[in-house]
Amino acid sequence: MSRQTPRAVAVIGTGTIALGWIALFAAAGRDVRVSSTRTDAREHLDAALPAYAASLPGGAREPREILARVRVVPEVGDAVDGVEAVQENAPEDLELKQKLFARVAEAAPPEALLLSSTSTLLPAALGAFLDTPERVVVGHPFNPPHIVPLVEVVPAPDAPAALVARVTAFYTELGKSPVVLRRALPGFVANRLQTALLREAIHLVREGVVTVGELDTVVTSSIGQRWAAVGPFEAFHLGGGPGGLRHWFAHLGAGLERGWESLGSPPADEETVGTILAQAEAGFGRRPYAELAARRDRRQNAVIAALAESAADEGRRA
Amino acid sequence: MSRQTPRAVAVIGTGTIALGWIALFAAAGRDVRVSSTRTDAREHLDAALPAYAASLPGGAREPREILARVRVVPEVGDAVDGVEAVQENAPEDLELKQKLFARVAEAAPPEALLLSSTSTLLPAALGAFLDTPERVVVGHPFNPPHIVPLVEVVPAPDAPAALVARVTAFYTELGKSPVVLRRALPGFVANRLQTALLREAIHLVREGVVTVGELDTVVTSSIGQRWAAVGPFEAFHLGGGPGGLRHWFAHLGAGLERGWESLGSPPADEETVGTILAQAEAGFGRRPYAELAARRDRRQNAVIAALAESAADEGRRA
Repeated sequence: MSRQTPRAVAVIGTGTIALGWIALFAAAGRDVRVSSTRTDAREHLDAALPAYAASLPGGAREPREILARVRVVPEVGDAVDGVEAVQENAPEDLELKQKLFARVAEAAPPEALLLSSTSTLLPAALGAFLDTPERVVVGHPFNPPHIVPLVEVVPAPDAPAALVARVTAFYTELGKSPVVLRRALPGFVANRLQTALLREAIHLVREGVVTVGELDTVVTSSIGQRWAAVGPFEAFHLGGGPGGLRHWFAHLGAGLERGWESLGSPPADEETVGTILAQAEAGFGRRPYAELAARRDRRQNAVIAALAESAADEGRRA
Repeated sequence: MSRQTPRAVAVIGTGTIALGWIALFAAAGRDVRVSSTRTDAREHLDAALPAYAASLPGGAREPREILARVRVVPEVGDAVDGVEAVQENAPEDLELKQKLFARVAEAAPPEALLLSSTSTLLPAALGAFLDTPERVVVGHPFNPPHIVPLVEVVPAPDAPAALVARVTAFYTELGKSPVVLRRALPGFVANRLQTALLREAIHLVREGVVTVGELDTVVTSSIGQRWAAVGPFEAFHLGGGPGGLRHWFAHLGAGLERGWESLGSPPADEETVGTILAQAEAGFGRRPYAELAARRDRRQNAVIAALAESAADEGRRA
């Protein structure tokens, strides 16, 4: 590929997730074609993208530089013409996405990667209207996608290994950390883990053990920073002392299942949600959304930079 | 208090948690009296504390400087004579701890803080043999206690507010982030949240969705660093877009309870534990424990330093 022809990527949608992808692709030097049903898509991108340019993990970029690489191409068939990849971010409506991917598969180059940001639908279903349904691969990002490294790559069961390898190479080149799931379960991995923790968090607030704000402080000052450093299994391995995870399981024994049984199963009824919302809105909810989001992005970029520096140090030690 | 009389703290125990407290107290300039039933306690401390001195979050300290402030005083009554606080780390045996605290209360100054590192026992029970049982307050740290900021402070239901305030002031002065629980539930808050996430993590490995190592990567590259930056409620608030948590709950609706119902409830049987252990031992388990622990500590200290710098920046912005 010559330097005169930047590689092109199509992004379908202009919501929060789509904007993160657009900023990420443009920052990596790609030509980005944005397909959207919004008639004011250009104005929307011009207004929204500067905040994304300012919070890129590698450091703030000039909004102009990002915007210059982004073109609105409303019709999806035109948008995907000649691209290396399509990242779809349409609403979570199976039939809508199935029709979209059918149109995309017709118009995109045969080697183009067909990727969906879906967090709930399975890849085999998304590709149902294609001759080769396994061409559609889920590339599920984490919000905000231009910052959080993880991309859950979920191929259809019969997707060729070479396709999966091309998808992970595509995301890796963009600086992401793709993890390929070996099987698809609804919600994939990270969202299921979040859901499990959130249920207990809601239980603890509902039971009056802590407030919403206190619960957030507990997490940021303990398990959050622990799990930024090492994953839960390695953390428990190290918590077990020199005997490691084996000692930890042996020591805990039946206590593990007892602990699981003692977890809460709160209803998600109006009263429970009302309690959470009242406390949230009296706390962080009083601060403007854009200010909170910018603070989160700065903090998370600081964590990412610190971990990258620490990893580089480890490399020098090794 | 004159500069010639350093403040003294007693630590009961010499296990992993006790060692973290000892390093933390000594680094803060306290005289530390260690009460232990080990006849080789001195040799044990001399061997173990240098690694703690090297991994203090404020930067490595000279082992000699830490060790010079640590004295072994086997008999607990002698150890607590004249101290400002006692941090107990005996095995999780209620009767043993009850007897210990009865002896401590007899010998310690009446204003000394009586603190327990227990992760499973409730403060009212620990103080049952005292005339004023509510004197015993749980100060539950996170491993390793000299690094992780959180201390869960769990007072007995009838503990005076002034006592609770003195406990939080004590931990805050040491650089910790105490959070006072409004009610005691077994497991307190952070361990219950960990337990909830671990159950789903074990389910996902058991179902073959990811391996132990892949699950750890998913967490460190997404929710770990997210929750180091903002707690789960604030993260979902920001995930909801400008409509915040209210929009997020409304949008999810019945999906929240459906998500909870779809979570796994794996058995903690031999086969399940065996699968986890086999994968763990083929992965991080091949590396020496001390090397892994040092790596975790360096990474977590890097995260803590980055967040502190980010908070200082926020202060300058405000």
